[in-house]
Amino acid sequence: MAQKIRIAVTPGDGIGPEVVAEAVHCLEALRSSHNLPLEWTRFPWPSHAWHEENGESMPGDALEQLKQYDAILLGALGDPGPVDDPERYLLPDSISLAPLLDMRKGFDQWVCERPARLLPGARQYLADERAKDIDMLVIRENSEGEYVGQGGRLRKGLPDEVATQMEVFTRRATDRIIRYGFEQARLRAAARAEEGKTRHFRTLDGRTCESQVCIVTKRNALRYWGDMYSEAFEEMARQYPDVATHHELVDAACMKFVQAPWAFDVVVASNLQGDILTDLAAVLSGGMGVAPSCNLNPDDPNMPSMFEPTHGSAPDIAGQGLADPTAMLFTTARMLEWLGRNDPAVAAAGRELFDAVAADLAENAGARRGTQEIGKAVRDRL
Amino acid sequence: MAQKIRIAVTPGDGIGPEVVAEAVHCLEALRSSHNLPLEWTRFPWPSHAWHEENGESMPGDALEQLKQYDAILLGALGDPGPVDDPERYLLPDSISLAPLLDMRKGFDQWVCERPARLLPGARQYLADERAKDIDMLVIRENSEGEYVGQGGRLRKGLPDEVATQMEVFTRRATDRIIRYGFEQARLRAAARAEEGKTRHFRTLDGRTCESQVCIVTKRNALRYWGDMYSEAFEEMARQYPDVATHHELVDAACMKFVQAPWAFDVVVASNLQGDILTDLAAVLSGGMGVAPSCNLNPDDPNMPSMFEPTHGSAPDIAGQGLADPTAMLFTTARMLEWLGRNDPAVAAAGRELFDAVAADLAENAGARRGTQEIGKAVRDRL
Ligand SMILES: CC(C)[C@H](C(=O)O)[C@@H](O)C(=O)O
Ligand SMILES: CC(C)[C@H](C(=O)O)[C@@H](O)C(=O)O
Repeated sequence: MAQKIRIAVTPGDGIGPEVVAEAVHCLEALRSSHNLPLEWTRFPWPSHAWHEENGESMPGDALEQLKQYDAILLGALGDPGPVDDPERYLLPDSISLAPLLDMRKGFDQWVCERPARLLPGARQYLADERAKDIDMLVIRENSEGEYVGQGGRLRKGLPDEVATQMEVFTRRATDRIIRYGFEQARLRAAARAEEGKTRHFRTLDGRTCESQVCIVTKRNALRYWGDMYSEAFEEMARQYPDVATHHELVDAACMKFVQAPWAFDVVVASNLQGDILTDLAAVLSGGMGVAPSCNLNPDDPNMPSMFEPTHGSAPDIAGQGLADPTAMLFTTARMLEWLGRNDPAVAAAGRELFDAVAADLAENAGARRGTQEIGKAVRDRL
Repeated sequence: MAQKIRIAVTPGDGIGPEVVAEAVHCLEALRSSHNLPLEWTRFPWPSHAWHEENGESMPGDALEQLKQYDAILLGALGDPGPVDDPERYLLPDSISLAPLLDMRKGFDQWVCERPARLLPGARQYLADERAKDIDMLVIRENSEGEYVGQGGRLRKGLPDEVATQMEVFTRRATDRIIRYGFEQARLRAAARAEEGKTRHFRTLDGRTCESQVCIVTKRNALRYWGDMYSEAFEEMARQYPDVATHHELVDAACMKFVQAPWAFDVVVASNLQGDILTDLAAVLSGGMGVAPSCNLNPDDPNMPSMFEPTHGSAPDIAGQGLADPTAMLFTTARMLEWLGRNDPAVAAAGRELFDAVAADLAENAGARRGTQEIGKAVRDRL
C-alpha cells in the first residue's frame, strides 16, 4: 500500500477559510475517485488570536506540530482588525504575516516558485498579443538575502535616527538556488520537447538552446552579492552548456517583464528582487486571482513545503462567499504534483485538478460567480 | 542683465554624443531666439578612457570641475568594450556607470525625479485604455539606503563565502524626501487646478483631496527602515492635511503600476525600490525612448543637478545616426525648467522645448527617422 501523505491545512484569515473549503472539497473528491493515500488536519490559527490571546497567531509549538506533515496548504494571512480602530489597523501588517516567514525559515523552504502563464480566460493586462505566449517560471531565493531580519534603529524616533538593514547572502544558498534554476530549465525543455513545443534561445556566443536561465541582480549598485551571484552563475552555467544564460539587472528585468515577458524561460532572483518579480509575474498570468506560490524544501524529506495562493486575505470581502478560489485551487493542484513526486497517482490527480481549474477559467472568463459556485464547477469536471 | 546659467555637457558613451548633439542644437536655437543667458562646456570623458588611460572614465578632479556649473547634461554611460573580448565585456558594467553614482553622491543629488505620462504618440504597453490617463511622478531617494556601497565578501570565491550589503537610512534624508514628495503633490494639484483638470483622491477617513502621496516600503520584511519610513510619513502627513496619503508595499506597488497606474499621483520610494519603480514608470510612459531622469539637489545652489535620459548607451546602434533623441530632448526641457526656477524666460524655453518634442512625437508616432532628422523636426517647431 502506498505511503500516507499528510497535509496540514491552515486556512488563516479573511477569505482564507472560504477558499480553503473549496480546496478541501476537491481533495476529498480526488481522494475517493482515485483512492489516494491522502489525509489532512485543519489548524485554524487565525491572526485575530493575536489580538485576543497570547500575542501570537500561531501557538508556540506550531512549527513542531506542522513538521509532522508532508505539506502545508495555507489559505491567506493578514487581518487588519476593525478598520475603525487605527491602533489595531496599523499593527498587524508585520504581525499577522509573521507565520509565513516563520514557516519559510523554520522549514528551510529555500525555493519559492511561481510560474507565469497567461491561461485562456485569465485577464490580459498587456496590449501585445504575444502576451498569450508568456510561459516563464520565476524562482525566488527564499531563505536569506534581504530577508534575514538583521539590523536596527539607532536613536529610534529622534531626528538623527539611523536605521540599518543587513543583507546576507551565502555562496551555498546561491549555488543551490542557481542549480535548481538550471535543473528546472532542463525539465521544462524536456517537457516542451515531449509536447512538440520546443522553444529556442540564443547564447551570447551564437548557439541555440532549448531553455534559458536568466539571473537577476543589481550588481552595478549592490556589488558584493551581485558579484558573488555573477560568479556562481557563470561557474554553474559551465555544467549546463545545453541551457542558454542571461543576466539582467533588476530594474531592466522589471521593464522587460512588461515589454517582452514572452522572451523569458526560467528566472532566478534574490529574496526581495524575487518577491517583486513574482508579483509582476502574477500580473502577467492574469493577476492575484489565479497565481499560486510554492515554498519548497526540495532536499529534506522531513521538512514540509508550503503552498499558498499569492493573493492576500481580502478582509473587505471576507465571509460573503465572493472570493474567487481559482488561485487556491491552482495552488492545491501544484501541491499534489509536488507531493506526487514519488507517487504517480497523486501527481496525476494534481494535473487533473489543474486541467479542471484551467478549463473552468477558460469557459467562464469574467463571469460573476461565488466561491462555492466556482468550487463546485471545478469539482464537476473531476 | 540676467545671471549667466552654466551647463556642463557630458555626452558619455555609445549613442550619448549623438543624442547630446541634438540637445545642444536645440539649446543654441532657444538661446538665440529668446536671448537666454545660457552657456555650456563640453566634457567628453568617454568610458573607454578607462580602458586606455588611467583606470577612470573621469579625471580625478572631475567633480571639482563640474561643481563650477549650474547643471550637468549627461548623454549616456556604459561601454562594454569590444564584444569579442569577454574580459573587457564583463568589466565595465560597474566601472563605466560609476560616474553616475559619483555625481549623485558628490553633489548630494538626493532627489531622483521621473515623471510618467503616456503622451500621444508614445507606445502603449498596457491593454487598458485608461493608460492614457497615467500621470504620476515617481520620486526616488537618491542619496543613501540600499546604495551606500557598504559591505563585503568574506571568504571570497570559496564555497563558504558570505557576502553582505548594508542598507543605511537616516531619518533626516527620509524626512526631506517625504517632504519633497508632499510639496510636489501640492504643486501638481495647483497646476491641475489652473488647467481645470482637478483630480480627486480619497483619504482613509473618507475625505477627498486633490493630490496624493503614496509611500512605498517593504516594511513587512525590511522592518527597521520600513517602520522608520512609516513613522516619518505619518508625521509629515499631518502637516499636509490637504494631500491624501497611501502606503504600498513594493511588490504590490509594482503590481499596481501594471494593473492601475492611473490611480497614482506622487510616489515616494527608497533608492533601490525607486530605481525599480522609475523603470516601470518609464515603460508606462512608452519606454526608454522617451523617459527623462532628473537627479536634483534642490537646496544647495552650489551643487549642480544632473539630467540624463533613462536609457543607456546602446552600443549596438552607436555611431549610425539611428538613436532616437526624444528622451534626451525631454531631459533637456526638464533641465531648462529646473534652471529657470528664478528665470521665467529660461523656464518658458523649457516648456517650449517640451511642447515641441511632444508635438513631434504625436505627429510621427512609429515613423522610422534618424537622430538628426528628429532633432531637426523638433528644432523647426521652436
Ligand atoms: C507577506 C510578505 C512578507 C511576503 C514576502 O515578501 O515574501 C509576500 O509578499 C510574498 O511574496 O509571499
Ligand atoms: C546605472 C545604475 C547604477 C543606475 C541606478 O541604479 O541608479 C540606473 O539604473 C538608474 O536608474 O539611473
